[in-house]
Amino acid sequence: MLDVALLGTGGMMPLPNRFLTSLLLRFNGRMLMVDCGECTQVTLKLLGWGFKNIDIICFTHFHADHIAGLPGLLLTVGNSDRTEPVWLVGPPGLRSVAESLCVIAQDIPFPLEIIELPYTRSAPPETLALGEFLISVCPVDHRVPCFAYSMEFKRAGRFDMARAQDNNVPLAAWNRLQKNETVTIDGRVFTPDMVLGPPRKSIKTSYCTDTRPVALLKDFVRDSDLFICEGLYADTEKLPKAVAHKHMIFQEAARIARAAQVKELWLTHFSPSLTAPESFVNAARDIFPNTTAGKDRMTKTIRYEEDDVESK
Amino acid sequence: MLDVALLGTGGMMPLPNRFLTSLLLRFNGRMLMVDCGECTQVTLKLLGWGFKNIDIICFTHFHADHIAGLPGLLLTVGNSDRTEPVWLVGPPGLRSVAESLCVIAQDIPFPLEIIELPYTRSAPPETLALGEFLISVCPVDHRVPCFAYSMEFKRAGRFDMARAQDNNVPLAAWNRLQKNETVTIDGRVFTPDMVLGPPRKSIKTSYCTDTRPVALLKDFVRDSDLFICEGLYADTEKLPKAVAHKHMIFQEAARIARAAQVKELWLTHFSPSLTAPESFVNAARDIFPNTTAGKDRMTKTIRYEEDDVESK
Repeated sequence: MLDVALLGTGGMMPLPNRFLTSLLLRFNGRMLMVDCGECTQVTLKLLGWGFKNIDIICFTHFHADHIAGLPGLLLTVGNSDRTEPVWLVGPPGLRSVAESLCVIAQDIPFPLEIIELPYTRSAPPETLALGEFLISVCPVDHRVPCFAYSMEFKRAGRFDMARAQDNNVPLAAWNRLQKNETVTIDGRVFTPDMVLGPPRKSIKTSYCTDTRPVALLKDFVRDSDLFICEGLYADTEKLPKAVAHKHMIFQEAARIARAAQVKELWLTHFSPSLTAPESFVNAARDIFPNTTAGKDRMTKTIRYEEDDVESK
Repeated sequence: MLDVALLGTGGMMPLPNRFLTSLLLRFNGRMLMVDCGECTQVTLKLLGWGFKNIDIICFTHFHADHIAGLPGLLLTVGNSDRTEPVWLVGPPGLRSVAESLCVIAQDIPFPLEIIELPYTRSAPPETLALGEFLISVCPVDHRVPCFAYSMEFKRAGRFDMARAQDNNVPLAAWNRLQKNETVTIDGRVFTPDMVLGPPRKSIKTSYCTDTRPVALLKDFVRDSDLFICEGLYADTEKLPKAVAHKHMIFQEAARIARAAQVKELWLTHFSPSLTAPESFVNAARDIFPNTTAGKDRMTKTIRYEEDDVESK
């Protein structure tokens, strides 16, 4: 199962009652963040999931409200006695920006592994596996190179004894094959597909800010269990302003959710001028009913589909 | 009169209920800050004195908890429509650190005027006048070059009519001379001292973090109306830790306050482990009675002495 927390829901500047937009995922105890603006470590502290197991920090782009909290967060993670590397993932230029910001964080007691993924408009998404996180990025349309992210958690098929027997797989190999390992016994190689049924439905979350709607997004976020998407403004009157600053309004996010047939949409990255986003959410629900205006530290646990059925 | 606000009182990392140590002064509507850690713009927003009139940001040193909030603050000041320059003042290296951090704040709509003051241990304090702020720095003893600051607001003498007449100053020049201008009439030069009595007592605040106690401090903060000083730890048992990290405990700050004959001491820069600093303040009061444990957004208005008497 996957735990999802929306660490903050604001755009532009951190506010006393609304931190900057950031996402935290936890899967088997390991954590991945997307974006880390100023004060993100404070909302992380309030959430209470700890700092030490943050393995991966992804960045959509390098505007201050998405990355200024990096040096402070790394120092705080360092104070949690972490010594294992932290991966930083983002568009080209990440190394240079991260190193510039970390001029004030020279004492981090763990290595940074920096991965810059190529940004080419209209290019197909790139995918990267880090630990159990299958991370994909999609180039979007902001004032600077920017990625939408999806994180998928694949699930192998069920163990199929008839299939194992048909393939003459010895009993001694079953357990390891179920764990997706390849096993060699007496010179014979056995692979997981020899004992497993078809892959089961994965869990997929996607996260998209800051951008205008782009054609690639529909397929990129398709079938997400949870789609988290920016809506800088709620009101259609603000559309020209959203267009000018390369952002979206609520209804545009809802149209992507509908077209991509996601299960649920959370809106985020609200303008500081938008003091009560929830009072505008109905306009988005007219387009995509299962829409919620995000709130800081809103959380959700997403179970694999079969587990979900079993637990009911 | 001078308004003083302690924006935050924490060291190391911003906490949900305690922002990082920072000072804000307001004099005749213009503002000066000392230090700007992560989230300082949030406590500034809570304080409500606005962003636009922050003319000067001074830095004690370049550890993240004292400067990481700079790019975010500058962007927010920029959103307040400021176009006049902002002065940044600090130890050598300030330009390089500020430019590194501002890699994510390229769109600031005003110029930065960066002033690096020399740091030489045991050298006498340096003084700099910016607007109405007379800023002095004193080298202190931290793990990196670090300054204590004092900000003084001088006050000219009262208008002395007998003196003006003795000096044959024409009536037409009196008003401008009282405003400390020099006036030339018919080729004769008149200076303010020709119409003013002796200077009156100034207002002085001083601010000292992060450091061990150093000999220069006693004279540097002497006679401050308000002395704001770090006390990372309260307990004398923590003294070895304070020494190792080049910080102070409460009693050491109180001893400086007593030796320097300041009027009032506010303690600040508390360790995250020190959850209730006020419960330890008596040990400092035994040494210097007028000691208060700082709280976020604690404010004080300091009037010139004669005004204070008149207003009673």
